[in-house]
Amino acid sequence: KVHRLAVIRGDGIGPEVIDASLEVLAAAQSEFGFRAELTEISAGARHYLATGELWTPALQDQLRGQDAILFGAMGDPAVAPGILERGFILEMRRSFQQAVNLRPVKLYPGVTTPIAGLTPERCDLVIVRENTEGSYVGRGSTVHAGTPHAVAVQESVNTRMGVERVVEFAFRLAERRGGTLTLCHKKNILVEAGILWQSTVDDVSVRFPTVPVDYVHVDALCFYLPTTPERFNVVVTDNLFGDIITDLGAAVQGGLGVAASANLNLDGSGPSMFEAIHGSAPDIAGRGWANPIGAVLSTAMCLAHLGEGAAARAVEAAAVHILAQLPATAGPGMGLSTAQLGREIASLVQSN
Amino acid sequence: KVHRLAVIRGDGIGPEVIDASLEVLAAAQSEFGFRAELTEISAGARHYLATGELWTPALQDQLRGQDAILFGAMGDPAVAPGILERGFILEMRRSFQQAVNLRPVKLYPGVTTPIAGLTPERCDLVIVRENTEGSYVGRGSTVHAGTPHAVAVQESVNTRMGVERVVEFAFRLAERRGGTLTLCHKKNILVEAGILWQSTVDDVSVRFPTVPVDYVHVDALCFYLPTTPERFNVVVTDNLFGDIITDLGAAVQGGLGVAASANLNLDGSGPSMFEAIHGSAPDIAGRGWANPIGAVLSTAMCLAHLGEGAAARAVEAAAVHILAQLPATAGPGMGLSTAQLGREIASLVQSN
Ligand SMILES: CC(C)[C@H](C(=O)O)[C@@H](O)C(=O)O
Ligand SMILES: CC(C)[C@H](C(=O)O)[C@@H](O)C(=O)O
Repeated sequence: KVHRLAVIRGDGIGPEVIDASLEVLAAAQSEFGFRAELTEISAGARHYLATGELWTPALQDQLRGQDAILFGAMGDPAVAPGILERGFILEMRRSFQQAVNLRPVKLYPGVTTPIAGLTPERCDLVIVRENTEGSYVGRGSTVHAGTPHAVAVQESVNTRMGVERVVEFAFRLAERRGGTLTLCHKKNILVEAGILWQSTVDDVSVRFPTVPVDYVHVDALCFYLPTTPERFNVVVTDNLFGDIITDLGAAVQGGLGVAASANLNLDGSGPSMFEAIHGSAPDIAGRGWANPIGAVLSTAMCLAHLGEGAAARAVEAAAVHILAQLPATAGPGMGLSTAQLGREIASLVQSN
Repeated sequence: KVHRLAVIRGDGIGPEVIDASLEVLAAAQSEFGFRAELTEISAGARHYLATGELWTPALQDQLRGQDAILFGAMGDPAVAPGILERGFILEMRRSFQQAVNLRPVKLYPGVTTPIAGLTPERCDLVIVRENTEGSYVGRGSTVHAGTPHAVAVQESVNTRMGVERVVEFAFRLAERRGGTLTLCHKKNILVEAGILWQSTVDDVSVRFPTVPVDYVHVDALCFYLPTTPERFNVVVTDNLFGDIITDLGAAVQGGLGVAASANLNLDGSGPSMFEAIHGSAPDIAGRGWANPIGAVLSTAMCLAHLGEGAAARAVEAAAVHILAQLPATAGPGMGLSTAQLGREIASLVQSN
């Protein structure tokens, strides 16, 4: 079977972790009998500085025909904050209706977590973040800007359609995992959005009678996530809360080096996108020190999405195996370079 | 000097921790030569269930003449979520223009934190949360409610006046503490509100040339707060982000049992309010197990606000001293009952 994959290396350590991921992907191909047809796409901060191009129609056309996108990282101190986020990332999520941002929060054996005494058995949850609406719609306005009477209004727009597809996805996932679905919101304060989210969960839950449902305020969840992550199995939440709690989740699971994510299109209208959740990390770029595990685990999520379940499991298992042997989770302390880690994981996949 | 204090015990463990606090307050009075004239106010979930009353005009009149409010906790499973929060707490913050919600995140010696290897030296920051506007204004609307086409819009309203008074307060605090002021927001996405917040910080910073200024996205802050709290000294943020990160802060500092807070009026138009950040905890109410340290430390913040600096320092020191000797920070494991702890702290204050 042939899968067409767009590869966006991007900036900083993006190219380094993508190189390692492609090495692993190559091993998985020969081992599991599928073919990945790669198309390299130039995009990101350096591309923008050189060409002024962000989310161009030509780029969209090129990406639209692909089965998935492997994404490194974007960002450079020379590009003003917000430009790439709004001009590229959010446009991609929206144009390709990547409705779900999926973020496993899993403590892998051997990984150092900042949480005292936390064990892998106690930390294995998935956060399902709405990825196209809420506070991310870019709606707002300011009156009397720059005066003592300035008023800035920022809107969060939540649609039943947008919420329902994410909630349904989360229920299906909870059913498969045999776990509880927890809605995370702040419905006692954000009443209108809260009613929409809670009633959608209530309605959809009827179709998933075996899935226990829970509700936790976002502030309480930020208290519980680092202290008792075992409370959670699948958490569904809105775009902004999801952004916040997944970074906290990354901290709990031992750092940005190991955290993977998927931006999933659910209706076939465009490709899904897979990326480690770390940024371009310009401070450590070019040294070959970057931890590629997050990118490799994102590649595994990509393979699962493409229907290559056996390959996905093999890649994850290999990454997890190597991870358990690293002295630390990122940086020079790893002992092995980014490229060496890629090769080690690849050869494990091959001897699977 | 006479200070008129309203006391709202509220529900659950509220009365228990207030009793302990009043014991400490009595000791402080005799020791530091001021007088607290207490007015007991009945309010909260049980009061609401019995009378249907929340934030009544009579109550407001009674409270308005007070110098400060000591608040236990509110809440009961029999009252629907949101009723007391919106009908009482938010009304109080708004009516009395309690512009700042002040939350120290301080790891006291001897307290068990969930963060591996964290030491008190590395965790001593203050979060300054805007307390009257943002997403808490209760503005929103839903069209096509209850249909597949429902759209819920939720608004965050941010005024230059509201933001500036909080930012100014935070700068003054950072100056006094000799630390950095960090703005926490999500300005790359919430552009309108973000510009208002950042430009206010920029403008006010001119008047505080000795205070270094930093900016951290709220998601990144949730990554750093549990891993490297020493990055922060004073953090200023909006109402919703503040709600979220202060609960995370409470987790980092070793639990809700020790976390204190102040809702500060800055212009003399109404009393400020002081409360532990824990809730009414109906599950442990009535057993005498509740940890009163959060309430006692809130009482210390109250004393500082009333100009009784020496008494405030003595109460904090006594609470911290006792805390260091407790086997755990909350629950039956404390070894001492709520009342015993109150008495121990009180007698330490007296032998000051
Ligand atoms: C890059 C940025 C737009 C983004 C977000 O805010 O969603 C990032 O923080 C993430 O979590 O993917
Ligand atoms: C009780 C509730 C209104 C409240 C809030 O959301 O502000 C609480 O979580 C807090 O932090 O004081």
